[in-house]
Amino acid sequence: MSPYTGSARPTGEWRHIKVSEDDGVVTVTLARPERLNALTFGAYADLRDLLAELSRERRARALVLAGEGRGFCSGGDVEEIIGATLDADTAELLDFNRMTGQVVRALRETPFPVVAAVHGVAAGAGAVLALASDFRVADPTARFSFLFTKVGLSGGDMGAAYLLPRVVGLGHATRILMLGEPVRADEAERIGLLSQLTEEGQAQHAAAELARTLADGPALALAQTKALLTAELDLPLSAAVEMDASTQALLMHSDDYAEFHASFSEKRPPKWRGK
Amino acid sequence: MSPYTGSARPTGEWRHIKVSEDDGVVTVTLARPERLNALTFGAYADLRDLLAELSRERRARALVLAGEGRGFCSGGDVEEIIGATLDADTAELLDFNRMTGQVVRALRETPFPVVAAVHGVAAGAGAVLALASDFRVADPTARFSFLFTKVGLSGGDMGAAYLLPRVVGLGHATRILMLGEPVRADEAERIGLLSQLTEEGQAQHAAAELARTLADGPALALAQTKALLTAELDLPLSAAVEMDASTQALLMHSDDYAEFHASFSEKRPPKWRGK
Amino acid sequence: MSPYTGSARPTGEWRHIKVSEDDGVVTVTLARPERLNALTFGAYADLRDLLAELSRERRARALVLAGEGRGFCSGGDVEEIIGATLDADTAELLDFNRMTGQVVRALRETPFPVVAAVHGVAAGAGAVLALASDFRVADPTARFSFLFTKVGLSGGDMGAAYLLPRVVGLGHATRILMLGEPVRADEAERIGLLSQLTEEGQAQHAAAELARTLADGPALALAQTKALLTAELDLPLSAAVEMDASTQALLMHSDDYAEFHASFSEKRPPKWRGK
Repeated sequence: MSPYTGSARPTGEWRHIKVSEDDGVVTVTLARPERLNALTFGAYADLRDLLAELSRERRARALVLAGEGRGFCSGGDVEEIIGATLDADTAELLDFNRMTGQVVRALRETPFPVVAAVHGVAAGAGAVLALASDFRVADPTARFSFLFTKVGLSGGDMGAAYLLPRVVGLGHATRILMLGEPVRADEAERIGLLSQLTEEGQAQHAAAELARTLADGPALALAQTKALLTAELDLPLSAAVEMDASTQALLMHSDDYAEFHASFSEKRPPKWRGK
Repeated sequence: MSPYTGSARPTGEWRHIKVSEDDGVVTVTLARPERLNALTFGAYADLRDLLAELSRERRARALVLAGEGRGFCSGGDVEEIIGATLDADTAELLDFNRMTGQVVRALRETPFPVVAAVHGVAAGAGAVLALASDFRVADPTARFSFLFTKVGLSGGDMGAAYLLPRVVGLGHATRILMLGEPVRADEAERIGLLSQLTEEGQAQHAAAELARTLADGPALALAQTKALLTAELDLPLSAAVEMDASTQALLMHSDDYAEFHASFSEKRPPKWRGK
Repeated sequence: MSPYTGSARPTGEWRHIKVSEDDGVVTVTLARPERLNALTFGAYADLRDLLAELSRERRARALVLAGEGRGFCSGGDVEEIIGATLDADTAELLDFNRMTGQVVRALRETPFPVVAAVHGVAAGAGAVLALASDFRVADPTARFSFLFTKVGLSGGDMGAAYLLPRVVGLGHATRILMLGEPVRADEAERIGLLSQLTEEGQAQHAAAELARTLADGPALALAQTKALLTAELDLPLSAAVEMDASTQALLMHSDDYAEFHASFSEKRPPKWRGK
């Protein structure tokens, strides 16, 4: 348990998502395959809380986010979420939409990389969860549908209007968010939305392999790389350069940096310890 | 007329551009084909004023920007504009350059999508008008020439040094704005400058079809998607996520969102009303 | 010498890099071919100081940055730099990392374009020097390796976590900075990292030709184009449009702008003077 845990005890039981762990790789599976893994209020809340817990602990060094069954995630459940929000008042609507945004912020701020394994549908909030991940490993069946306007909502949901132009450029992002039409795997690869395109049926396997490579790597260096990529989207060049300088000075004191030099001198692979 | 109209009455007469309207789709045509639709002071001012008027009214739900004759727009008229600016004093030069920038800001801020239909030349200010539009629908004859340096001016004209790196990335944008060489349709598609590449001679037809689709869609959701895309280029992630949350909470009160749910339950297409 | 030189005299002798000049084109060559042009403390300091000097003078109108021998630059020297930093204290580490960042800021702020000529390895700091240049002209042997995490450091070195997402998008940048794997010439071209791909062995020749074209062009217009591209990454749209307006008003008073109009009227090529 993290020394920064307060009175509330972390839970080990996640009722709305499946969570497993293997030597630093945490796998989170959206597991309502009969509903194409449609998200419920509980699933959003579990993702928010799990990511916060993992970010305080040192156990996770990489995370795979995957979906069970025929697709990755069909987005917010039409019945539970759209139905419920029609009866909600303004304050409740803000609470809900802030929670979904907190999941995206948590994905961008975890001190370890997140790899989305996408096959089949990644729609609505499901597409944004993949977008907010660090890596998108997908097979040819993947299709990303930012379909918010098709339900009468803004394409800018959970930070999509911030993130998508920064991943694929403003032109593609405008078209994709305005029209809400599916982006298939080949187009996704062409415009820079995919990190890796796999053979059919291999997305989760390849994502797990990538997560293993990351988890076996220099965890502290990877955590700071992610933190800088997230922060420097919002910084001017001068501040970014200063932030890089102080981060590198810090990491030049780390055990892993000394280990690299020792292993290089001794002509052997480094043994990363993440500190 | 908008309830927010003051003492000045809107004009229905546009002397420097052609304007027509068909059930929510406004078509603006640059129509000096004998000069490849070179822009005059009057054309800039009309674009600025028309976009402001349309933004206050609820009539327009999509706008097509097109050029008559052999090309889209050859940019500022060498005689009327370059000639005149050579005799202008500093304050007059600022006035002119601020006006052209106001057209770009107006294009980015209209509460409805703008579709540029590009064939043949889109040069100088013509290239920037297309760049500032939400969609660029072009045929294989299209060529975008950000030729400002070729006349001794900065490539950063009317926001081009802001917009182009956000559409095609800093590397391509630097090359295109520094060298001022034409970007042909195939390169434009490859680097993300085009929203849609059509058959030869079909740009305006395809742009009109897209505008019709947009105008028949959920107008309020599309307006907010555009507003967020424009705003979130300038916001940090945390503010963007909060802005998305309050926008979605607002739209979850809209008639169109309820209509989506009703149509989904009744297994029929939604009837969007834009409110 | 610049009228803005103080008591300290500029040096003409650069001991850690090779510098030559030909009618406005300055060529800087990293020249430790036996170490794949690995950077030393002296080389960083010379780059910082040379770029500052050239930025105060009017002589340079374009700069080529190239590497001698088998590759462009293998990054910081493992012995001199990594070895030395292991013994350095916190203040010394900050001094070193600030100096490297100053080279990147200087590359982005020179009032003339910088063309990196890349063949073979561009690794670590070498990859960032190329990234911070305005143009990357490369041959098919080029490979860009942002390998910082492989030595236990952050991928955000010298502004890389700021610049790379703005050149190739956040998705590609995350993959490249996290994994540290080489980006070969064909991938670099596909994702927008290259300005120009040449035949094998032709990178330096093509870079020199491009620099000549730039140096013979409208130097003031190119300088302001670069300044706006650099500044407007960090500005909101409204400020960018205002900055463009005042820059164009300024350049409309320039001799080069009048010369364009005269040459156009007289149907002859313009004679640019850079003022």
